[in-house]
Amino acid sequence: MSQSTYTVEGMTCSHCVSSVTEEVGQIAGVQNVDVDLATGKVTVTSDTDLSIDDVRAAVTEAGYQLAS
Amino acid sequence: MSQSTYTVEGMTCSHCVSSVTEEVGQIAGVQNVDVDLATGKVTVTSDTDLSIDDVRAAVTEAGYQLAS
Repeated sequence: MSQSTYTVEGMTCSHCVSSVTEEVGQIAGVQNVDVDLATGKVTVTSDTDLSIDDVRAAVTEAGYQLAS
Repeated sequence: MSQSTYTVEGMTCSHCVSSVTEEVGQIAGVQNVDVDLATGKVTVTSDTDLSIDDVRAAVTEAGYQLAS
């Protein structure tokens, strides 16, 4: 089990949280996604270490941006 | 045909706009809903005059508030 935290920019409401949770949750191996709207922190629990490129792609697909 | 403009508080992103558009669009007689996110102005075109109570209920159902 692996856990990583990312910062996502641009989320403004609970709908944004839902979009990010859904897209990141579709990455292979992801078990849980926890998003804190106030801070933009997205904590992902997964079977194995995730590729940052996969996480970035999912966040972009949701319509937001991973903080660099 | 009747057109009225309301101000909705609390919309922060395009998801919010979609929610309000969908809920207000379900009021009987509504032909078109136009939402301006920046100003919160919601312009509703309908067959007949709408009840302010119906509009308020739809906005509340979407999770936002009609400015008083």
